[in-house]
Amino acid sequence: MTNRFEETPPVSTNSAEKTVAASRVRMNELVMPNDTNPLGNLMGGRLLQWMDVCSAISAQRHCNRNVVTISVDNVEFKKAIKLGEVVVIEAEVTCAFTSSMEVAMRVWAENLRTGERRLCTTSFYTFVSVDADGRPVPVPEIIPESDFEKERYEQAAKRRELRLEISKQNKQVERKNK
Amino acid sequence: MTNRFEETPPVSTNSAEKTVAASRVRMNELVMPNDTNPLGNLMGGRLLQWMDVCSAISAQRHCNRNVVTISVDNVEFKKAIKLGEVVVIEAEVTCAFTSSMEVAMRVWAENLRTGERRLCTTSFYTFVSVDADGRPVPVPEIIPESDFEKERYEQAAKRRELRLEISKQNKQVERKNK
Amino acid sequence: MTNRFEETPPVSTNSAEKTVAASRVRMNELVMPNDTNPLGNLMGGRLLQWMDVCSAISAQRHCNRNVVTISVDNVEFKKAIKLGEVVVIEAEVTCAFTSSMEVAMRVWAENLRTGERRLCTTSFYTFVSVDADGRPVPVPEIIPESDFEKERYEQAAKRRELRLEISKQNKQVERKNK
Amino acid sequence: MTNRFEETPPVSTNSAEKTVAASRVRMNELVMPNDTNPLGNLMGGRLLQWMDVCSAISAQRHCNRNVVTISVDNVEFKKAIKLGEVVVIEAEVTCAFTSSMEVAMRVWAENLRTGERRLCTTSFYTFVSVDADGRPVPVPEIIPESDFEKERYEQAAKRRELRLEISKQNKQVERKNK
Amino acid sequence: MTNRFEETPPVSTNSAEKTVAASRVRMNELVMPNDTNPLGNLMGGRLLQWMDVCSAISAQRHCNRNVVTISVDNVEFKKAIKLGEVVVIEAEVTCAFTSSMEVAMRVWAENLRTGERRLCTTSFYTFVSVDADGRPVPVPEIIPESDFEKERYEQAAKRRELRLEISKQNKQVERKNK
Amino acid sequence: MTNRFEETPPVSTNSAEKTVAASRVRMNELVMPNDTNPLGNLMGGRLLQWMDVCSAISAQRHCNRNVVTISVDNVEFKKAIKLGEVVVIEAEVTCAFTSSMEVAMRVWAENLRTGERRLCTTSFYTFVSVDADGRPVPVPEIIPESDFEKERYEQAAKRRELRLEISKQNKQVERKNK
Repeated sequence: MTNRFEETPPVSTNSAEKTVAASRVRMNELVMPNDTNPLGNLMGGRLLQWMDVCSAISAQRHCNRNVVTISVDNVEFKKAIKLGEVVVIEAEVTCAFTSSMEVAMRVWAENLRTGERRLCTTSFYTFVSVDADGRPVPVPEIIPESDFEKERYEQAAKRRELRLEISKQNKQVERKNK
Repeated sequence: MTNRFEETPPVSTNSAEKTVAASRVRMNELVMPNDTNPLGNLMGGRLLQWMDVCSAISAQRHCNRNVVTISVDNVEFKKAIKLGEVVVIEAEVTCAFTSSMEVAMRVWAENLRTGERRLCTTSFYTFVSVDADGRPVPVPEIIPESDFEKERYEQAAKRRELRLEISKQNKQVERKNK
Repeated sequence: MTNRFEETPPVSTNSAEKTVAASRVRMNELVMPNDTNPLGNLMGGRLLQWMDVCSAISAQRHCNRNVVTISVDNVEFKKAIKLGEVVVIEAEVTCAFTSSMEVAMRVWAENLRTGERRLCTTSFYTFVSVDADGRPVPVPEIIPESDFEKERYEQAAKRRELRLEISKQNKQVERKNK
Repeated sequence: MTNRFEETPPVSTNSAEKTVAASRVRMNELVMPNDTNPLGNLMGGRLLQWMDVCSAISAQRHCNRNVVTISVDNVEFKKAIKLGEVVVIEAEVTCAFTSSMEVAMRVWAENLRTGERRLCTTSFYTFVSVDADGRPVPVPEIIPESDFEKERYEQAAKRRELRLEISKQNKQVERKNK
Repeated sequence: MTNRFEETPPVSTNSAEKTVAASRVRMNELVMPNDTNPLGNLMGGRLLQWMDVCSAISAQRHCNRNVVTISVDNVEFKKAIKLGEVVVIEAEVTCAFTSSMEVAMRVWAENLRTGERRLCTTSFYTFVSVDADGRPVPVPEIIPESDFEKERYEQAAKRRELRLEISKQNKQVERKNK
Repeated sequence: MTNRFEETPPVSTNSAEKTVAASRVRMNELVMPNDTNPLGNLMGGRLLQWMDVCSAISAQRHCNRNVVTISVDNVEFKKAIKLGEVVVIEAEVTCAFTSSMEVAMRVWAENLRTGERRLCTTSFYTFVSVDADGRPVPVPEIIPESDFEKERYEQAAKRRELRLEISKQNKQVERKNK
């Protein structure tokens, strides 16, 4: 976890554009018995659920509306997380399309006995901003500031293409599977 | 949901190879208030958690060992699922590598008032079979039977490559983000 | 678990009568730490709750309405179910009275290490179909097809009588207990 | 709820026999959103789970050992219980057999707006006292004191016979259902 | 736990004043795995939550309205409570101000193996009675009956002053912490 | 929320003293249906539980040991928090005594529609650091850095005295209440 990440007070809703920093969210969750499998490891699905809540808050800080998760990118679980450890999740909006937002997350496990913190997974979740009837609504534009934010912003279109490509392939599989 | 999917009694553990059918699992889950966002829609993260449990059971039916989720492929949420609807999840092992298994899932939402059932998402989760110390253990081979199972089996290597490719790209992003 | 049990796609709501097969539901649940007592056994009450959800879905597949549980028959827990095992519940409507439905269930525990599956309990739950104000509403008739379904259908009236008989006796006890 | 029911301080473990009063337990539970169906009524299965916890505590007060639920008698849900109401459950051991105990329960719903309290269900759950390996262990005898307790105690054998009778019938059904 | 504490049937809502006894509530809760920390001890926060539910029911028995927790007095956790033990909470309204009520609680842990019950904590929670729009509403007066209830009633004003004093000090700290 | 609060990477365990900053924790929690009362307000007890988890993580970051909550100071709930809002909790160790630590918390509610964030409560929780047998263990000293941290540190002894004073008074009440 770098010192660069700092959650700032929320920004007023009238902005037509907002910085990445304005959407930052950090969650600290303690791994409890019911979150674990018989080996005492955090179950992957439980982590995916925490990540969904964390990134949904981030997306809502950006658009000040209800949001709906529309896709989750490939998630790789690199290291087991144990019962009693703390899961640290950081989320921030990377790019805003017409009515959708891409949110990047990094997930650490922290061993409270040793003070060691290790990066366990990273992913992108995508949300759509919706009104009370569930219809898509335009969102403010995003202002990337640092070099890293700018580069990640520019690569967002490419990640989006890959998502559409995978989506098409899945539709073909489904058609055959009838 | 086609009639082809039928969960069969579990198979004895001594097999060096097992059919896809032997790993089939079907879950029916009722969407309760705490599973939904303020619009009354099932939260994406809750569905990802149910899918993790369902596919983990499927993987364990194949390998008869503890398993650990190591990756979740791109998941696209196509249609909102509402409070009070039933979520039907079907999972089956598609391919077994040395000590890992790819599990395919299809997810429907069923409206109990109209009897309508609509396909909401499909995905692949990957698991590793582990011993009591968490070390990888070889798994039985899979025997695809139908034409569809065989085709999906053959494409598994390609999906695996794509996962490794995405994994590499993510590592580069992480390196820059220090 | 016999091969006879297969969950079929839901049937349109306009039917005046439906087969038993159209109401079939199968749930697979993983026993987690919070479901167990200090001996590591699934608590009976947790199983009764899962059975209630499973049979309520079955009743709703038959009547396409909200339902209310009105009685649970004697349940005998024959074998302990352990932490980490899978509980398999199968439910189907056996008989429809004016506005109520009897649902039969069978419950297995599956040991994922050995692949062994043992029958743990069976029971009948009864539901009433209700409208938005909670008033009873007539339900479609049931069409038993196999010999077993027909015999179970014919014995439903007898089970119902036994329920009424036990209900009367309980009322007498309650009257004395004032 | 009569004034007769009073939970007393627990009794020391060395007794070879104990009064009914020594096993009394009262639970007050608030009905929360996740306990209810779409009509805002408490789900039957959730109530059965609370009753299991309440009666298990009662049985453990009597035998000072771990217990396992072995049967639940016919439960009739007479009146709907609503979101925000309080569920009051009272349990006490009625009779002790060699290593098993029958626990009687009465369940009220209390409307906190009107102060009205209505009897919603009554039932008997049966438990076996077990040692650390799950083997049955003899339990203290029960001492019924009031006339009502004595009458209920004397009828326990009859209720037990009925349970065995129903158990036999269920086994016949299961045999046919293979 | 003394024999003096007996939960009575609820009192009709039209009373302009009610006894302390009319507000009594007893909860028995079993400590489950997810309620505990890695040492197998009940987490303090989980107990505070149970105490909030128990005292809220007590306050609602007094005022027959929705209530909102407005303060929790200093709580001291004197003895660890272990997994599998029973937590017994007793609550009763001690004093009613214009639209607020002070509720006293005592909390015991009961070891079901030894039958030993030890006092673990005591505290006062304060609630405000509110209408459907969340506005404060006057509550019935309280009638303390025993000597102990009268003394506790008379000291309520002093406890209230201490709360206001602490509240003022906290505000000063907050002002500096901007 | 001021910009001064920034969660830093955890510090190695060998330090005999640590800064306040090294113990900082921020949680963001979404208020879900089951966290609320019938008015749609977050229940006070649920917030107390989240605060316990957040402050326990903070204490563990300071001492790198298991901790046990030993007291919770007066908590005043100033403003209602609604369903769908985000609760932001910030915790940091203010002072370390021999084997105990005082943790200060501030709690905001954030309305995701308006971007408004309001301070809802502040409190101090106290923890004891324990070894595997639950025995108290000395903790590192704390290094207050800013003027505010120093002032708060110096007042810790006074707050501790007040806790002991209240504790004594409660003991007297308990003695009378036998």
